[in-house]
Amino acid sequence: MSLLPEWAKDYSRRILAQDGAAALIVTLMLIPQSLAYAMLAGLPPQAGLYASILPLIIYALSGSSRTLSVGPVAVLSLMTAATLGQLSLQGVHYTDGALALALLSGGWLLLFGLFRLGFVAHFISHSVMSGFISASAVLITLSQLRHLLGIQLEGALWQLPVVLVAQSEAIPPATLGVSVISLIALLWARAGLKGLLLRIMSPASATAVVRLMPALVVMSAIVLSVQLDLESAGVAVVQSVPAGLPVLSWPEWHHLPWRELVLPSLLLGLVGFVESVSIGQTLAARRRQRIRPNRELIGLGLANLSAGVSGGMPVTGGFARSVVNFDAGAQTPAAGIYAAFGITLAGLWFAPWLSNLPQAVLAATIVVSVLGLFDWRHFGHTWRYSRADFSALCVTFIVTLTAGVEIGLVSGILVSLLLHLYHSHKPHWAEVGRIAGTEHFRNRLRHRVELNERLLCLRIDESLYFANAGELEEVIATLVSQRPGLRHLVLQCTAVNRIDASALDSLLMINERLRLAGICFHLAEVKGPVMDRLERSELLRQLSGKVYLTLFQAWQELGGS
Amino acid sequence: MSLLPEWAKDYSRRILAQDGAAALIVTLMLIPQSLAYAMLAGLPPQAGLYASILPLIIYALSGSSRTLSVGPVAVLSLMTAATLGQLSLQGVHYTDGALALALLSGGWLLLFGLFRLGFVAHFISHSVMSGFISASAVLITLSQLRHLLGIQLEGALWQLPVVLVAQSEAIPPATLGVSVISLIALLWARAGLKGLLLRIMSPASATAVVRLMPALVVMSAIVLSVQLDLESAGVAVVQSVPAGLPVLSWPEWHHLPWRELVLPSLLLGLVGFVESVSIGQTLAARRRQRIRPNRELIGLGLANLSAGVSGGMPVTGGFARSVVNFDAGAQTPAAGIYAAFGITLAGLWFAPWLSNLPQAVLAATIVVSVLGLFDWRHFGHTWRYSRADFSALCVTFIVTLTAGVEIGLVSGILVSLLLHLYHSHKPHWAEVGRIAGTEHFRNRLRHRVELNERLLCLRIDESLYFANAGELEEVIATLVSQRPGLRHLVLQCTAVNRIDASALDSLLMINERLRLAGICFHLAEVKGPVMDRLERSELLRQLSGKVYLTLFQAWQELGGS
Repeated sequence: MSLLPEWAKDYSRRILAQDGAAALIVTLMLIPQSLAYAMLAGLPPQAGLYASILPLIIYALSGSSRTLSVGPVAVLSLMTAATLGQLSLQGVHYTDGALALALLSGGWLLLFGLFRLGFVAHFISHSVMSGFISASAVLITLSQLRHLLGIQLEGALWQLPVVLVAQSEAIPPATLGVSVISLIALLWARAGLKGLLLRIMSPASATAVVRLMPALVVMSAIVLSVQLDLESAGVAVVQSVPAGLPVLSWPEWHHLPWRELVLPSLLLGLVGFVESVSIGQTLAARRRQRIRPNRELIGLGLANLSAGVSGGMPVTGGFARSVVNFDAGAQTPAAGIYAAFGITLAGLWFAPWLSNLPQAVLAATIVVSVLGLFDWRHFGHTWRYSRADFSALCVTFIVTLTAGVEIGLVSGILVSLLLHLYHSHKPHWAEVGRIAGTEHFRNRLRHRVELNERLLCLRIDESLYFANAGELEEVIATLVSQRPGLRHLVLQCTAVNRIDASALDSLLMINERLRLAGICFHLAEVKGPVMDRLERSELLRQLSGKVYLTLFQAWQELGGS
Repeated sequence: MSLLPEWAKDYSRRILAQDGAAALIVTLMLIPQSLAYAMLAGLPPQAGLYASILPLIIYALSGSSRTLSVGPVAVLSLMTAATLGQLSLQGVHYTDGALALALLSGGWLLLFGLFRLGFVAHFISHSVMSGFISASAVLITLSQLRHLLGIQLEGALWQLPVVLVAQSEAIPPATLGVSVISLIALLWARAGLKGLLLRIMSPASATAVVRLMPALVVMSAIVLSVQLDLESAGVAVVQSVPAGLPVLSWPEWHHLPWRELVLPSLLLGLVGFVESVSIGQTLAARRRQRIRPNRELIGLGLANLSAGVSGGMPVTGGFARSVVNFDAGAQTPAAGIYAAFGITLAGLWFAPWLSNLPQAVLAATIVVSVLGLFDWRHFGHTWRYSRADFSALCVTFIVTLTAGVEIGLVSGILVSLLLHLYHSHKPHWAEVGRIAGTEHFRNRLRHRVELNERLLCLRIDESLYFANAGELEEVIATLVSQRPGLRHLVLQCTAVNRIDASALDSLLMINERLRLAGICFHLAEVKGPVMDRLERSELLRQLSGKVYLTLFQAWQELGGS
């Protein structure tokens, strides 16, 4: 294995130019985004910038996606704010808490990557993720209201309208003006501008220009803020940002409530991973490349660890900027490294200017960028497609909104697991009979088949495991109690891909109960791998009947006809 | 629906005689058992007797098994002791805690029964249950050492040998003598006596006599204790039992830590239910009867509620006494009602004598009765059959033994769920090709088949749901990245019984990614119910390809050959 990543081996001047151009656009887009998400997380602005430097370089060297752009994202920033807010950390302990979250979630991801445990992310079903993201979009929007309106908003969700009305007179008109103008500019950039641009340039260029609008709005806002001295007109501005590079440091361990951060950091890491992999796969597929989930876990894990030691905040692959990077023609992860340098330079030169930026402008960029996250159409689709998934979606959405992000996500995961277990605990089964004159056996309820009162043939359409083993026992008990003349029962195992130890116990139990009732228990059409396993068990020795290769053989031998 | 239970309608004198005889034997067996399990739970002896009166009557009228005998059982008594011990309740609050546990677990079971949620019990796989029961048997045995040896034993599990050696000189010889004699008598009754009896009587009678040995040992011990004045020889005796009937009462709500009892009572209820249903099904099957799990939940729930208001302790169907009841010829639940009257009479007449019973004798009956619970052979079988189930078994066993019953059970459940998800997250799939000259398609790795580089046919052998949807995306991404000439991909859905919303999203994503890569995505052989559902989704509208009835049609139309 070479020390250099694969893409570095044939790195040409042409690729350098493409990567460089993409990096320039991504840098301009990342600056306002980084500042905004730091504000959303309740952190000083430089945390967002620092999280967009070292993590980008580390991910470029260790991740598996060629075009994913990592950095702070809206949902993780919200989760960071929610976790740290709950622990009521203050000042330097708050920023240390964010670093600790990045370190711990990085540790989790690295651990999962090294032990190839990426499958744990599958615990979060799409419905749960969708409900969670939609609720996050609402929570994020609400959290920005105080910056947009320039007032203090406190209290629970349902008290919000009352508080808003009560405080409506305290809203500073200048702040409101800045918010409205920024929102209109940003929304128009999304809705109207692209149509205009498409007439004069390619779709890729149009997308890039649209994505640069937040940077343009932020820069214009800074200029106007200085010119009009908005701060003295009552418009809150960003706190001053120290110019310079991040320093490698370590959070103050002994002041932090580590135990309380373990579960949140796990959830944060998983949510980030699920989001990032989904984006990475979509982009990779367009160029028929692929990403490797375990390698992604390691890349994202190391990126978060590096964010944690360089004054940053939790990071993952972001949707908007990855798409921009891809559309702008980035060919290799080197584009990420160039963007990191871009942010560093911006941090050095641009930082002093930031103290003139109105908070309302950043809040407007946040609100506009999370608008697309609220996926209301998904609610409708899921309702029509599956009530079970819809319940998981709604539980996650409602609990996240009312009780908090962690408990919302965990409830969603539990509900979807419960529903899955509920669905698979009743395997489909059919009493089958022979289609006269053939070797075929079909469901007696759907076809005209030959049956025999001494012989019952049962087909089970699911792998047998702990969640449905008990049901099989019951189905057989019911069928047997209805058939006084029964002498033989044959279980047709065509669809059984796996039999776990619980199901094996159930089969032993069924065999024993049938034996006590004077009925022979047979198996038919057991698949190869399942049979290999059964041969290591007691079942074949204890079985009161035989194992038949085909159901037809059993039918003939047991006197079906 | 009649108010009388079904069996009461044609209740004859013959059935009365059979039920009465069974009730007599069960009563004699229940008395020592009830006292012993009350001691195990750390409760006064009458709690065990009271738990064997009202709950038996209530279960007889509401349960669905004809021969199940409910009452205190070893594992629930251990769980009660562990829960209440952790909360460090004292005196009357301790007994109130046991009543609260019975009430809450009864409430849970009733709730599950009314809402038909019995499937939640499937969360506890056989391996987890087996590991839990085995660990419980060890914990129960160890907990009785202090009664058997008449010394105080404190400290953790690994300190036990040291403590034992240190205190060996403090063991009262008389207590040790009583313990050894009782253990020998009880063990001989199990091992040697039955062989002797079988020569002179029927197996059923022999079993009944063997089961009565504990009662005989207890009665002999009382007589000898009085004759030899064992108490003054340093042998600890049972505290005095008030003669009389249980009084309906209610635990002192406001002194109890209700919140801390919620999870333990849920686990206690589920463990009791799983045990009871397994016994009930085995017994019912012998007479080709059946039990209804939701009705059982209601029966056991009401039984526990009645135990909670009549000075009892948590109850469920016990294995040993249900078998005795069955073997002694009980025909209907009326036998349980007669046994309840038997216990009542015994409580009235026998109670004053109990204060002469050495605790060591009760401890010996406990130890001998739980010997059979430690299922060491199951460890070997599970190891050979499935490493995944073996890990769940061992985690449950070790954590229960070292960290406590609740956390042990919960860890086991989580590990088995994780392992299940791990197993089902990688569905079996095969690239299939046509067997020349036929309409059959088979795995290219196992058969000589025709393939086509423009057309890829993929068979997936599992229902698609959130745990394996991501894997399918990856499999397809990998296959596509290896085949530059690919134009069509057909997914053969023969084995797909269900597609949940997560999997639907994955299919939409796959369709979109393939479209971007210039590949048409088709489905073939979709089952009826799955197709019904897909028709309510966007997939069929967005699909870049078609849905074919058979894979052969797709092969022909897409130019496979």
